[in-house]
Amino acid sequence: MTDRKPLVAEIIAVGSELLTPFRADTNSLYLTEQLNNLGIDVKLKAVVGDELERMVDCIRGAVGRADVVIATGGLGPTEDDLTREAFAEVLGRKLIRSEDILEGLRQRFARYGFKMTPNNERQADVIEGAEVLRNARGSAPGMFVDNGSTLMIMLPGPPREMTTMFEQEVLPRLRERHQGFFMARRQLRVSGLTESAMDDMIAPIYKPYANPTTTILSGLTGLEVHLTAVSSTADEAQQLVSELSARIEEALGENVFSRNGDALEQVVGQLFTTKGLTLALAESCTGGLMAKRLTDIPGSSRYFLSGVVAYANQAKIDLLGVPADLIETHGAVSAEVAEAMAQGIRQKTGADVGLAVTGIAGPDGGTPEKPVGLVYVGLAYGDQVEHRKWQIPGDRERVRELTTTLALDWLRRKIVRQ
Amino acid sequence: MTDRKPLVAEIIAVGSELLTPFRADTNSLYLTEQLNNLGIDVKLKAVVGDELERMVDCIRGAVGRADVVIATGGLGPTEDDLTREAFAEVLGRKLIRSEDILEGLRQRFARYGFKMTPNNERQADVIEGAEVLRNARGSAPGMFVDNGSTLMIMLPGPPREMTTMFEQEVLPRLRERHQGFFMARRQLRVSGLTESAMDDMIAPIYKPYANPTTTILSGLTGLEVHLTAVSSTADEAQQLVSELSARIEEALGENVFSRNGDALEQVVGQLFTTKGLTLALAESCTGGLMAKRLTDIPGSSRYFLSGVVAYANQAKIDLLGVPADLIETHGAVSAEVAEAMAQGIRQKTGADVGLAVTGIAGPDGGTPEKPVGLVYVGLAYGDQVEHRKWQIPGDRERVRELTTTLALDWLRRKIVRQ
Repeated sequence: MTDRKPLVAEIIAVGSELLTPFRADTNSLYLTEQLNNLGIDVKLKAVVGDELERMVDCIRGAVGRADVVIATGGLGPTEDDLTREAFAEVLGRKLIRSEDILEGLRQRFARYGFKMTPNNERQADVIEGAEVLRNARGSAPGMFVDNGSTLMIMLPGPPREMTTMFEQEVLPRLRERHQGFFMARRQLRVSGLTESAMDDMIAPIYKPYANPTTTILSGLTGLEVHLTAVSSTADEAQQLVSELSARIEEALGENVFSRNGDALEQVVGQLFTTKGLTLALAESCTGGLMAKRLTDIPGSSRYFLSGVVAYANQAKIDLLGVPADLIETHGAVSAEVAEAMAQGIRQKTGADVGLAVTGIAGPDGGTPEKPVGLVYVGLAYGDQVEHRKWQIPGDRERVRELTTTLALDWLRRKIVRQ
Repeated sequence: MTDRKPLVAEIIAVGSELLTPFRADTNSLYLTEQLNNLGIDVKLKAVVGDELERMVDCIRGAVGRADVVIATGGLGPTEDDLTREAFAEVLGRKLIRSEDILEGLRQRFARYGFKMTPNNERQADVIEGAEVLRNARGSAPGMFVDNGSTLMIMLPGPPREMTTMFEQEVLPRLRERHQGFFMARRQLRVSGLTESAMDDMIAPIYKPYANPTTTILSGLTGLEVHLTAVSSTADEAQQLVSELSARIEEALGENVFSRNGDALEQVVGQLFTTKGLTLALAESCTGGLMAKRLTDIPGSSRYFLSGVVAYANQAKIDLLGVPADLIETHGAVSAEVAEAMAQGIRQKTGADVGLAVTGIAGPDGGTPEKPVGLVYVGLAYGDQVEHRKWQIPGDRERVRELTTTLALDWLRRKIVRQ
């Protein structure tokens, strides 16, 4: 184990359009991945508009806290492009117009047959003492400043200019300054437990570790446990992650469905493909969502034969062969109908396994006996048929997503044992 | 028009998972839209991990600059949920455990048949003097603090909890404090045109207007034109938007499918319901996505009878009655098979309209004659059957989403004329 602390980065995205309801900053996801690969942790991201005072405030805070500060955007020719001015103010340095850059800009414009308008000259302003980063795909150059305690990196906002400049100009500089630091990650995906129940089981295991760090995420497609280790060698970082992961996996047992971030539908697909089995679906309340999730995965045609979305009762009778009197006696949302749907789709298609869902997604259609969120899942394989019942709290989207997750997870646990 | 300055907000998203390469903060897009509707400008967004010191730094900066500070996330039961502590530190106030909230938490756990683990008790900690915001869809309550110069609002991270709490608990409080500033919006949704073709048609119309502002977005579910007007009265803001919108709608004609932000699947559902028609689907390459999108909408059972996801050729034959020799002669991806699928599902289900899709979503399965992205859509109604053919560029997800959008849009244009 190393006791060197990983370098810490903060990322600042500049641009008023990123403060509208319509656009999210995605440059930072790319930069985070690149920095993580170098063993540099991203600890804060900010999005700020074209407003000098807030920008200066933001940059000053970041420079005070972080080893690396990367800003994207605000390097263009217009008057609201203020990133150069803001960094210069934080550093207490002057902006100097570079004759070399000016000449390059003039040639660039001439090459495309345009006349350079005067506002473009601002792109030739360089902070005193900064290294200029060449822009292979646009006009605004970037800057790299090392003030002794923090590296400050200014990149253009358009993604293709930003990524190219990062790879060509920034990566070599970071590698040179930051050798022998490696990060390893592991992502466990977990089903069948609530977040707090899982945390009770594994907190005593991961809490004593400062390295790897552990993060827990919860969503409609299950729980995720992210482990991240840093070390001075890649092998050791991997070793640290593997050791803690093995202990957590042991505690969680078959609730862990994936060790590499694969989604449940990928895991189900791999199981069916490996075992040479085929699957057909009969969906009522999930309305095609289960088929959609399975067929999101390339290659799903290897095991997935077909699905029927039997929304109307008559469709359950006509397309799945569910006996009409079964629906009349027990209701369309019942264990009996779920099992009959599973058997029906299996027989109609000749699939090895038939999986069926019937339930009440809401917001309408609930009754005191059969409230919104009541779902039955039927599973037919060989000469057996089974069902499970869940009462799912929440709205239509949640009921549909969670029903799909619970049904696929039940299927996974059954097939694993075949 | 008013010359009052709009209030300024900053948004802080809390959670280490938002600092990985895998997750972007999207809550802030929703919050920005809501705040903009109240005439409140968002000037800075930050994402910070589960780390007390940086969080305090971030909150302190925001509280010093903004009229409204909203934090999302970090209110859960685990030890890295530190939002409560961070705001308490910035405010110099204590956290007090609320017996009321504790009791509510216990009842919530009992209702779902779980035992409450001790870590959940932290969710009952309230900042001295804060108003508690009820969480209708989860366990962690929010908080609302007015320190005289800044409103501080703490919301849970999961989007459905956050949005519900914002609408039920935060909006009324903000409205009360912030009268006399009105914003009106209109969202036109458009299909059947490329972004640049549409802009050529409407730029001469909207360019002369500074108020309303016009924003154009492009995505897999079509194009969007957003108009936003501000004024000192609600009526005037509405009037400004309506005037410009009418001119744009006239230029775009029936390419505009929605004037209120409704999705294509909602518009299709309304058309079928109004006209008293029923629909059934036969999907191959979209794998249930079309049925999923239609049944996302509550009440879709009024017109949507059933769908068949006929992934395997045998399923097209068995479940849809497509003649085997038709598949052999023309291939499964062909105009003939698309039409036969549409007729087949219509006959099997007795629906008024049968819509079918067959195509190659990729990444595998393409040939020089039938490349990835080739799709045929079939439409059967009355005694007529038609097809259309598209060649869609892009990856699997893009082909599936765009096929669904194009097919539903074709359906819309057909049904509008019935």
